Amino acid sequence: MSYTAPLSDFEFLLYNVAGLDGIAATDRFADADRDVVSAILNEAGKMCRDVLEPLRRVGDLHPATLENGVVRTPPGFSDGWNAIAEGGWVGISSNQEFGGMGLPLTVATVVNEMMSAACPSLQIAPLMSQGQIEALEHHGSDDLKALYLPKLISGEWVGTMNLTEPQAGSDVGALSARAEPNGDGTYAVSGQKIFISWGDNDFTENVCHLVLARLPDARPGTKGISLFLVPRNLPDENGAPGVANTLNVVSLEHKLGLHGSPTCVMQYDGAKGWLVGEPHKGMAAMFTMMNNARLGVAGQGIGIAEGAYQHALAYAQERKQGRSTPTGTILDHADVRRMLIEMRADIFAARAIMLACAGAIDMGRATGDADCIARAAFLTPIAKTFGSETGIRVAETGVQVHGGMGFIEETGAAQFYRDGRVSTIYEGTSGIQAMDLVGRKLMDGGEAAARLLDEIEDHAERARTTLPDLAGPVWEATESLRETTEWLVAQGDMNERFAGALPYLRAFARVLGAHYHLVAALAEPEGPRAKLARFYIHALLPEYTGLLVQAQNGAADLFALSADDLAA
Amino acid sequence: MSYTAPLSDFEFLLYNVAGLDGIAATDRFADADRDVVSAILNEAGKMCRDVLEPLRRVGDLHPATLENGVVRTPPGFSDGWNAIAEGGWVGISSNQEFGGMGLPLTVATVVNEMMSAACPSLQIAPLMSQGQIEALEHHGSDDLKALYLPKLISGEWVGTMNLTEPQAGSDVGALSARAEPNGDGTYAVSGQKIFISWGDNDFTENVCHLVLARLPDARPGTKGISLFLVPRNLPDENGAPGVANTLNVVSLEHKLGLHGSPTCVMQYDGAKGWLVGEPHKGMAAMFTMMNNARLGVAGQGIGIAEGAYQHALAYAQERKQGRSTPTGTILDHADVRRMLIEMRADIFAARAIMLACAGAIDMGRATGDADCIARAAFLTPIAKTFGSETGIRVAETGVQVHGGMGFIEETGAAQFYRDGRVSTIYEGTSGIQAMDLVGRKLMDGGEAAARLLDEIEDHAERARTTLPDLAGPVWEATESLRETTEWLVAQGDMNERFAGALPYLRAFARVLGAHYHLVAALAEPEGPRAKLARFYIHALLPEYTGLLVQAQNGAADLFALSADDLAA
Repeated sequence: MSYTAPLSDFEFLLYNVAGLDGIAATDRFADADRDVVSAILNEAGKMCRDVLEPLRRVGDLHPATLENGVVRTPPGFSDGWNAIAEGGWVGISSNQEFGGMGLPLTVATVVNEMMSAACPSLQIAPLMSQGQIEALEHHGSDDLKALYLPKLISGEWVGTMNLTEPQAGSDVGALSARAEPNGDGTYAVSGQKIFISWGDNDFTENVCHLVLARLPDARPGTKGISLFLVPRNLPDENGAPGVANTLNVVSLEHKLGLHGSPTCVMQYDGAKGWLVGEPHKGMAAMFTMMNNARLGVAGQGIGIAEGAYQHALAYAQERKQGRSTPTGTILDHADVRRMLIEMRADIFAARAIMLACAGAIDMGRATGDADCIARAAFLTPIAKTFGSETGIRVAETGVQVHGGMGFIEETGAAQFYRDGRVSTIYEGTSGIQAMDLVGRKLMDGGEAAARLLDEIEDHAERARTTLPDLAGPVWEATESLRETTEWLVAQGDMNERFAGALPYLRAFARVLGAHYHLVAALAEPEGPRAKLARFYIHALLPEYTGLLVQAQNGAADLFALSADDLAA
Repeated sequence: MSYTAPLSDFEFLLYNVAGLDGIAATDRFADADRDVVSAILNEAGKMCRDVLEPLRRVGDLHPATLENGVVRTPPGFSDGWNAIAEGGWVGISSNQEFGGMGLPLTVATVVNEMMSAACPSLQIAPLMSQGQIEALEHHGSDDLKALYLPKLISGEWVGTMNLTEPQAGSDVGALSARAEPNGDGTYAVSGQKIFISWGDNDFTENVCHLVLARLPDARPGTKGISLFLVPRNLPDENGAPGVANTLNVVSLEHKLGLHGSPTCVMQYDGAKGWLVGEPHKGMAAMFTMMNNARLGVAGQGIGIAEGAYQHALAYAQERKQGRSTPTGTILDHADVRRMLIEMRADIFAARAIMLACAGAIDMGRATGDADCIARAAFLTPIAKTFGSETGIRVAETGVQVHGGMGFIEETGAAQFYRDGRVSTIYEGTSGIQAMDLVGRKLMDGGEAAARLLDEIEDHAERARTTLPDLAGPVWEATESLRETTEWLVAQGDMNERFAGALPYLRAFARVLGAHYHLVAALAEPEGPRAKLARFYIHALLPEYTGLLVQAQNGAADLFALSADDLAA
């Protein structure tokens, strides 16, 4: 196995879809010129190929373990972390004042995808840190920033997110962890948190937990939740990790995949913590982290898809079968080609959506432009869901390309299938993302959606002369999507929207993907990306028709069946 | 966890789709009256619930191992096998002359599905035996039948299939195992075979291998392959297992799932074997076994789907989340309902297709009717592919219903996801099935397909008055499918057919599924199956539109990309 960063597609998408030239033209991101970005992608790609990729299978075979309360990470993961930290890859888009590179999130997103393709179980660690860094940048006090940000950005310390409790998953408002004021401005945090990725490790000198908990006077539900920074080791007067805080790892989960990543049950027993942001406003601060993490999970899914694709393509090119074909390999068979081209075309679409979202976030931050901010908010659930579903689907197809060998663990194809499976679940399930899309993100009466659809149709109009067989279907699909969007907006009963929310999201992703494929085809109508676009628009885009019918089917059919009917 | 056999759906489908009353009206299957069948399904269901289901997780945690050349099966698997053998469940549809029940394959297919739902890794063993029994019934000499069939049917011995070699998977014709005449009517079989499910065990007194190999004067390719019966222990003069044959298990595979099933690399070193059928006609004999096994794999996929569905439904009914809903469980959420109802509706469709296929096989056997035989041949690749893809999709959705718990192995949802993955690969990949459908099965100019489509449209016409909102879409979908079928038949270049073969197969399954749902709705328009049919036909059937576009897209887009384009 090996991994080659798909630099050509990355660069194409950064400049033709994410709008990186425009982003680099703002004051905030003036450093992000083409040479800098190119050098970064090259360097990161090499590190992923040479250092991280060899760890993928090691982590699978040697899961993280808990020994007498101490997490032991797989062999080599410590070196992998050091390479990430020393390359500056934790803090690509973090504040320069605290040691970050201050580059656009689009660039960080590409590097995150590469790290995930190479070793997803380790890549979660920098991803969690990045979310924490961003939450502190936005909501932390000056003291917290000065103490923690340099350590987190340099990778000396690592950060985690602590939301979930056994009875409070998607329903965050049900959480019951408590925080009592100590009287000195700090808090005593108590409770149990589950599913804490990289809750501990044996390679950073400290681990910093962001924990959601309730103050004594908190209201029930999400409006009574506050956010606390709770380090494993309490910083001493010099900021070095001192005495151990009263928290510990109770156990590690046995997971389907991502074995290299320790998923911890954490117990806090009056652990000392510092409030981040305002009391009872923890959810807002957490959402800063979550939105970042959602885009990160999109990248994780797409990275896993890219890894699975490269792996399957290599197998198809060397597997001899059927002697009467040009190369004698299975790549000559139409159905094997169909699988590989679908994989690649879906990866291109998912990556384009993710980078369009990242670009909108960057422009929103650099300019404060409300349309950019709305665009980013609208694209986030689509990017997260389509990116993670693409990871699963592509990894599943990768197993299929391998035939019987795909079911054998040594081949490696099955690991992508196992590792990728969680990405549609954590940081908000696909169902939650879809509810967000048809609920909150259509609360503007569909304005942000309509602006996006207008742009897609305008572009299709411009492409019609050169590429009529591609531009026509994209225009028609967009028009259908507009009608369904208007239907959804008109539904007052939210269950009518929710019933078809995920099919709607998937249809939206299909159409967006077609748009970005069309952008690529128009840029170079005879190039390989145009050939890929042809297949996507002719063969995959039409899936939207069935999805939109389901999107508008409403709730009646779903609620007609009683629990008894379902169990009979 | 537990398993409850879905007896109501089974009985409905047996009598309303598979035509079991008609089958039981034939001389051959006169014993299969309603009381007998009902008693059998009840008994088998209890055995699956009480004996086999508890073994599912045991087998996952304690994989079969190889110790000094001897296979050790998971704890309790021996008892599981004995329960299967003693219940007569190996030989439900086998010849009564040799101890079988002589019942229709439809009945055996239902029992196979149940056993798969309860413990798929063990269920492969009787499935392989059944294939061997059928091959011997059709092609074995009287001596072989008299010696082996009673032992295989009683479960004292077990059978395996040996096709694959490292360089010969889907391309069976590339196999190189050899068979030299010993001069006494027996043969010396040599070569290596891989992926041999249940290649050995520690609970039957003998293991009988059906092995494909080449005689010295064999032509290259599939027309030079012969079939041999090669027992692990050579029967002595009394038919008892005597001295060991010269064959052995070299190693076991480490698989993604089905850990309880030993998947063996087998080595034959001049092992003594008996020819089954004519020299060089081994493929024909093997196809007897394969067709049986293909239907068996459909049942395996559907069984895994049923297990995953029951598991997910139970979780959804007890998982509290969101306090403002009627039950306070996640079952009140539209998207969770959508997932569960999709799972159930797809299982119903896949099971109906499988049993329609089994029913056609039975009628073909009982009456020799050419239309029945053609119907069975046409439905087999659809039943196999849609059944196995349903297993994968439903198991994946089952993980999703569990949220974060789905990724944790102890929950059990992930095991269905792992166990089910191979079913679209073995006994002919989905790609191979689809090529069979648009190639061999349309060689009649589409006649068998047209007869089926006519029946579906006639039925939809009859349903139109009572159920216009269901009958209309089914009729229209069938008409579209007919057009695409005609387009495929008109393509002389087989690659034009193969390019869209799998999307075509999937569309065909969608339409067939809709037809059988309509049958159920018409039978009881206010019943729970009618409610399920509404969702399937309104929300899932429309997927066919996109699939048919892809089916007719042709090969050009697939072959436009060079290997370099794919790797760039």
